Amino acid sequence: MKRVGIIGGGQLARMLALTGRSWGLDFLVLDPDRECPVSVAARMLPGEVDDPGALADLARDCDVLTYESENMSVPALRSAAVGPRLAPPLKALEVAQDRWLEKRLLGQLGIPTTACALIETPEDLAAAAAEVGFPAYLKSCRAGYDGRGQVRVEDRQALQGAWHGWEQTRSVLEREVAYRREVSMIAVRGRDGDTRFYPLVENIHRRGMLHRSTPRPEDDAGGPARDYALRLLDAFDYVGVMTLELFDTRDGLLANEIAPRVHNSGHWTLDAARTSQFANHLRAILALPLGDTRALEHCTMFNLVGALPPLERLLTVPEAYVHYYDKQPRPARKLGHVTLRSPDSSALGRAADRLEALLV
Amino acid sequence: MKRVGIIGGGQLARMLALTGRSWGLDFLVLDPDRECPVSVAARMLPGEVDDPGALADLARDCDVLTYESENMSVPALRSAAVGPRLAPPLKALEVAQDRWLEKRLLGQLGIPTTACALIETPEDLAAAAAEVGFPAYLKSCRAGYDGRGQVRVEDRQALQGAWHGWEQTRSVLEREVAYRREVSMIAVRGRDGDTRFYPLVENIHRRGMLHRSTPRPEDDAGGPARDYALRLLDAFDYVGVMTLELFDTRDGLLANEIAPRVHNSGHWTLDAARTSQFANHLRAILALPLGDTRALEHCTMFNLVGALPPLERLLTVPEAYVHYYDKQPRPARKLGHVTLRSPDSSALGRAADRLEALLV
Repeated sequence: MKRVGIIGGGQLARMLALTGRSWGLDFLVLDPDRECPVSVAARMLPGEVDDPGALADLARDCDVLTYESENMSVPALRSAAVGPRLAPPLKALEVAQDRWLEKRLLGQLGIPTTACALIETPEDLAAAAAEVGFPAYLKSCRAGYDGRGQVRVEDRQALQGAWHGWEQTRSVLEREVAYRREVSMIAVRGRDGDTRFYPLVENIHRRGMLHRSTPRPEDDAGGPARDYALRLLDAFDYVGVMTLELFDTRDGLLANEIAPRVHNSGHWTLDAARTSQFANHLRAILALPLGDTRALEHCTMFNLVGALPPLERLLTVPEAYVHYYDKQPRPARKLGHVTLRSPDSSALGRAADRLEALLV
Repeated sequence: MKRVGIIGGGQLARMLALTGRSWGLDFLVLDPDRECPVSVAARMLPGEVDDPGALADLARDCDVLTYESENMSVPALRSAAVGPRLAPPLKALEVAQDRWLEKRLLGQLGIPTTACALIETPEDLAAAAAEVGFPAYLKSCRAGYDGRGQVRVEDRQALQGAWHGWEQTRSVLEREVAYRREVSMIAVRGRDGDTRFYPLVENIHRRGMLHRSTPRPEDDAGGPARDYALRLLDAFDYVGVMTLELFDTRDGLLANEIAPRVHNSGHWTLDAARTSQFANHLRAILALPLGDTRALEHCTMFNLVGALPPLERLLTVPEAYVHYYDKQPRPARKLGHVTLRSPDSSALGRAADRLEALLV
């Protein structure tokens, strides 16, 4: 029996473990919380995810290591020397957790992004403003670092005020994108370089969080999105599932963010793809043959955020596949998701209306 | 969060728990073996399944109780007074574990069976032989009781010898059935009486164990099989999944056995039905709305018995969905199953040939 180590024990780890259990895989998860969502289907190694000693312990006990979030400490992973067992590779993690490295790599690979510039010193402000223009977003390079996420700025003065308010945190200025919609491309690459792509997914956000994801297998934007994802996968010599988030604009796709992991916009694959993103991530990191990524029928996924509607009400929608994460309800917390699927697109639309009414 | 108690921790309990975990259900399982197959996805209550004290403990801690095998002690369950929380009902368990009660109920409900007679005393032998005829099977009323299963007898003398060799165990004499095939009907009934039927399943046995199951949604035998299952479900005021095994003969269907539980011939539903038998069993016992029982596409299931082919070989078949049960290999032991599914029946046939070659 192979043992998979997971760094972090949230819902992504949980769905990986619940999937892999069916194959007789064993899971050991590093997380400070013994009662975290994955704990129902894995053995826990209680500890901090940025503790090199704990990471080395985890690596010693497992055949392969993976992580469920890009907020992992690259220095800790390096000093634990877990690199050879880690998938996806450290390089992908490093780039994904730094907005500037990310934008620079996208640019190097010829993948279009919105105009952007790095701001590290007060001298950078004027050049960045000139290069990027307004309206723009000031974003700290490290996501959510010290509570500094992103702020919209309409002119130089606002930019200056915001950046100094952040105590000059290393940041990126990004031109605001007038997008028609947000999409994501989820891909998987095996140890032998075999690569598969899920259908392009259209995403709707509410209050800054993913609300709904719908795969669009016939979408014209799928072609360039696959092309961009492939360039990244090859550049990283990637192993596992990777997600590329993009804006669809009048001028085509603009890459926004790389997530070196299974992704919320791929949760529909659990119930409505031939092989789920979780199964394919495990197949990839364990050097097993990759599975078919096609959608089975029309489907759409809704996140359950902040509060959980009762199961007995959700299950009155015959098209619904319900997933709860065993997390305590809290405002703006992802507690579960529901995938709706149907062979008939208008039946799916009606089911989506019924479900939306239950989410209010 | 609702807590489900399961009596017995084998692979059926395991698949129930892995299914219910996605809904945030909690599982507590009574089994003497802490490392039994369900233990990866449930909390264990170590104890004997026929210990009334342990059963009462389990009932006290759970919202609803179910069992994964018909080999449960009815007296122990009665003395633990768990009846009101138990689903399926005690009556179904009692009938299913006694061949004579089973045959008598089938007869009372007008469900055809092969000719049969009860043998309790030496005086019953001649009457049974006259009523049933030969060739026939002598079967102990309690399945596998004291190692006494069944034996084929060709005449009165053989019958007499076999029965006395069994020390006059209470038995049933059943006329041998010349069947064309074996089939099963899996049905689910909710607490409100709502009843759904899975497609008729065609089963192939090897060396006395289920080898392969294939749903046949369009089969003409589905109609009478549903009718017979419905009579039983209503007679028991049943709650949960029930399976009726039948012989398909030149003269129509003959009922063979009742299994008051999810069933090996329904494992394909995990990957290839809109709602699996495990999900529907949980929905029924928890008074949740029942789910759609239709098959999604062509599929067939193979048991993995005695030895496990390596995962990396099984997954080279793109149509394969693999389930291992975390059991130690042993001859004639069910260790897992593989479901194959495809929108194309001839592709499915080719996949089945490939898989059979891997099972040798």
